[in-house]
Amino acid sequence: MESKSSDRRKFLKNGAAFVGAAAAAAAAAATVVPASAQTTTPTPMPEMETPDLEALIAYGQRSPFVKSMRTSVMERMSPDEFGMTFHVQSPLQDSVGMITPSSLHYVSTHRGSYVPNIDPAEHRLVIHGMVDRPLIFTVDELKRLPFVTRAHFLECLGNRAKSTHKTVQQTHGLTSCSEWTGVLLSLLLKEAGVQSGAAFIVAEGAETVKGATSIPIAKAMDDCMVAYGQNGEALRPQQGYPIRLLVPGFEGMHNVKYLRRIKVVEKDYMTYNDYGHLVPDAQVAALTRVIGPKSVITFPSGDQKLPGPGFYEITGLAWSGSAAVRNVEISTDGGQNWKVAELRTPAHPMAHVRFALPWNWDGKECVILSRCTDELGTRQPTRAEAAAYWKQPENSEFRVPGADNSVFPWRIASDGSVHNGMA
Amino acid sequence: MESKSSDRRKFLKNGAAFVGAAAAAAAAAATVVPASAQTTTPTPMPEMETPDLEALIAYGQRSPFVKSMRTSVMERMSPDEFGMTFHVQSPLQDSVGMITPSSLHYVSTHRGSYVPNIDPAEHRLVIHGMVDRPLIFTVDELKRLPFVTRAHFLECLGNRAKSTHKTVQQTHGLTSCSEWTGVLLSLLLKEAGVQSGAAFIVAEGAETVKGATSIPIAKAMDDCMVAYGQNGEALRPQQGYPIRLLVPGFEGMHNVKYLRRIKVVEKDYMTYNDYGHLVPDAQVAALTRVIGPKSVITFPSGDQKLPGPGFYEITGLAWSGSAAVRNVEISTDGGQNWKVAELRTPAHPMAHVRFALPWNWDGKECVILSRCTDELGTRQPTRAEAAAYWKQPENSEFRVPGADNSVFPWRIASDGSVHNGMA
Repeated sequence: MESKSSDRRKFLKNGAAFVGAAAAAAAAAATVVPASAQTTTPTPMPEMETPDLEALIAYGQRSPFVKSMRTSVMERMSPDEFGMTFHVQSPLQDSVGMITPSSLHYVSTHRGSYVPNIDPAEHRLVIHGMVDRPLIFTVDELKRLPFVTRAHFLECLGNRAKSTHKTVQQTHGLTSCSEWTGVLLSLLLKEAGVQSGAAFIVAEGAETVKGATSIPIAKAMDDCMVAYGQNGEALRPQQGYPIRLLVPGFEGMHNVKYLRRIKVVEKDYMTYNDYGHLVPDAQVAALTRVIGPKSVITFPSGDQKLPGPGFYEITGLAWSGSAAVRNVEISTDGGQNWKVAELRTPAHPMAHVRFALPWNWDGKECVILSRCTDELGTRQPTRAEAAAYWKQPENSEFRVPGADNSVFPWRIASDGSVHNGMA
Repeated sequence: MESKSSDRRKFLKNGAAFVGAAAAAAAAAATVVPASAQTTTPTPMPEMETPDLEALIAYGQRSPFVKSMRTSVMERMSPDEFGMTFHVQSPLQDSVGMITPSSLHYVSTHRGSYVPNIDPAEHRLVIHGMVDRPLIFTVDELKRLPFVTRAHFLECLGNRAKSTHKTVQQTHGLTSCSEWTGVLLSLLLKEAGVQSGAAFIVAEGAETVKGATSIPIAKAMDDCMVAYGQNGEALRPQQGYPIRLLVPGFEGMHNVKYLRRIKVVEKDYMTYNDYGHLVPDAQVAALTRVIGPKSVITFPSGDQKLPGPGFYEITGLAWSGSAAVRNVEISTDGGQNWKVAELRTPAHPMAHVRFALPWNWDGKECVILSRCTDELGTRQPTRAEAAAYWKQPENSEFRVPGADNSVFPWRIASDGSVHNGMA
């Protein structure tokens, strides 16, 4: 059986090989069919009969071999700080494509682990305040109205990498992306008739300790959505069933879950959720509303291990709170040189996009990074640029006062193990 | 409290009102906030503490109020005909957007309800036959290769509406759409080196009674995918975990699950699955490979009931096995007049697209239909056109010999109840 390593280079235009020279022989041997197998049938895989036929019919479950799970954040804030912190990270290291499975969507709340158990038949959305015609909608009434379906990411402002984090689930797991379906908030507000002088809305959720937030009326009349659908079905309870507010590109807490009330008001009101937004520093306050252009490499990422030198695709997710992603660049030498990655999913406004770059690892220690530029031309800052902007000391440990969208490094050791590059 | 019904027409450009004239007063009363509620807080919704914190963290479940489930087909074929039929329909009446949740994806198999329980570490994909370099890939090796992420529908050839069906789940539930991630089959075949004279591939699954199918080499080298990802995570076992073949636009059975072997061959081989493809009638044989342009209205649909005259959106799904959907037209008068619907999701090649049309129901009995035209200009046939094409008697009960993509009618009675228009 002959197999030349040069033959295995065919599928890559840029000349990178499936496996590096050092491992070529072994890999080729492992992937060439033995002569005996070419005329016989491979051994069949085991089959298992599931006892409950009705369950098999009704709802498909994951394979028992799939262990991908959300995790709780490492650092828990004290109740004195923000109440009952419940931050759950999505396993980005296992992600493929653009969509986050609804079951694995991140969750952030300062109202503990309670999940409201809302009967949609009893739920109402009230729109009042500075409007000509205050309105109440049932969920069924909302579903009768013209709908939109759009992919949008959500991200918690607390999605900040620290040097103690090991995995991408820990560094960046507080963001997710779904195909949302719902009614544009502008339609509801036009129906209610927004009065002259209105400048903000206050949106409130149906929780005992309400989720509430102030949003500029210009944003409310632009692309905000009252969503009832997520990835082809109803919202999950942890994403706000039966309805939530979507405020595309704004930090997560603006996207009020269990939405029950929108009050049109004349100014920016302080609410339970508005920590940090009404701080004296206007620059900080402004930069906590909209998520900047951001990206992260999900493979190779922390705690993963490359089996050896050779061909891989570096892949990850990029997003921006202001626009669609225009491009993503990747560096494999610590930021000295950058290559434009391919976008492997459509680049929708304020949505995750999956990027990838074919790469031939030479087996030497290196630092890999990704940076995103959005359609407004804004580029994700390096850690040093962020430090300069925020007037912070130039070391990896500073905490950006606003949203942290700085470029994040993974360090690949010569044994193939991947580590947090901030450490 | 004043509320003029004319005010409520604002949000619709075409002048249709949220509610019809007859129900305007009642609906307006129901949706205007009582004066007392404008300054007080609405009653909070009940909250429920889930006992298992770890489960709450790891994986988000559906609301207990969401009852959307797959169902088994009404008609079960005899074992003599096609073996152990297991056909499970997706609840299209509950669908929103373009994506089918993986748990609700339809399942069709003639190998019973058994679900292979495959350890991905043990699974292999063999590529052999008329190739220069026969290859074996592990799942991990496949995941290292350049990937694509694409939305594609699947549909069972048996997805045929009958007059006895009541719901859209029964008439059209054997189709679903996912965001698939995997490796292009052409990349693997190029790597193996397809020999001169090769005309087909035979793809085989790792089931005891193998799933196998013959596919023209031209299709195999075009857009076929060896998929390991579905809607952002691993395939579900009922969709072929750990890997399956995707043959975009070809009828479902070609999309071999639990893919373990691809043999490059010189001709179209008869396999276990190839019922109907090697029949003497070439026209029939050809028309069972590719799904024609097709569509169905999911709301209003059978067994649903419109609460009264007034504004609704007619919405549904359209797809074609040959191209992207160019447009969808809707008739609300039994096919006499047609209006172009809006496409509310991107129209990807060989993928579902969500369409909708604002509509003001006057409360009279009517028949609503949708028809799809794809980017090749091929239009979904009416039932009468299909009858003429297949030389069948012109009544609704004939069974199309090949794939049935004919236009389907819903009849709305004057009480708002929706019925199968074929009945």
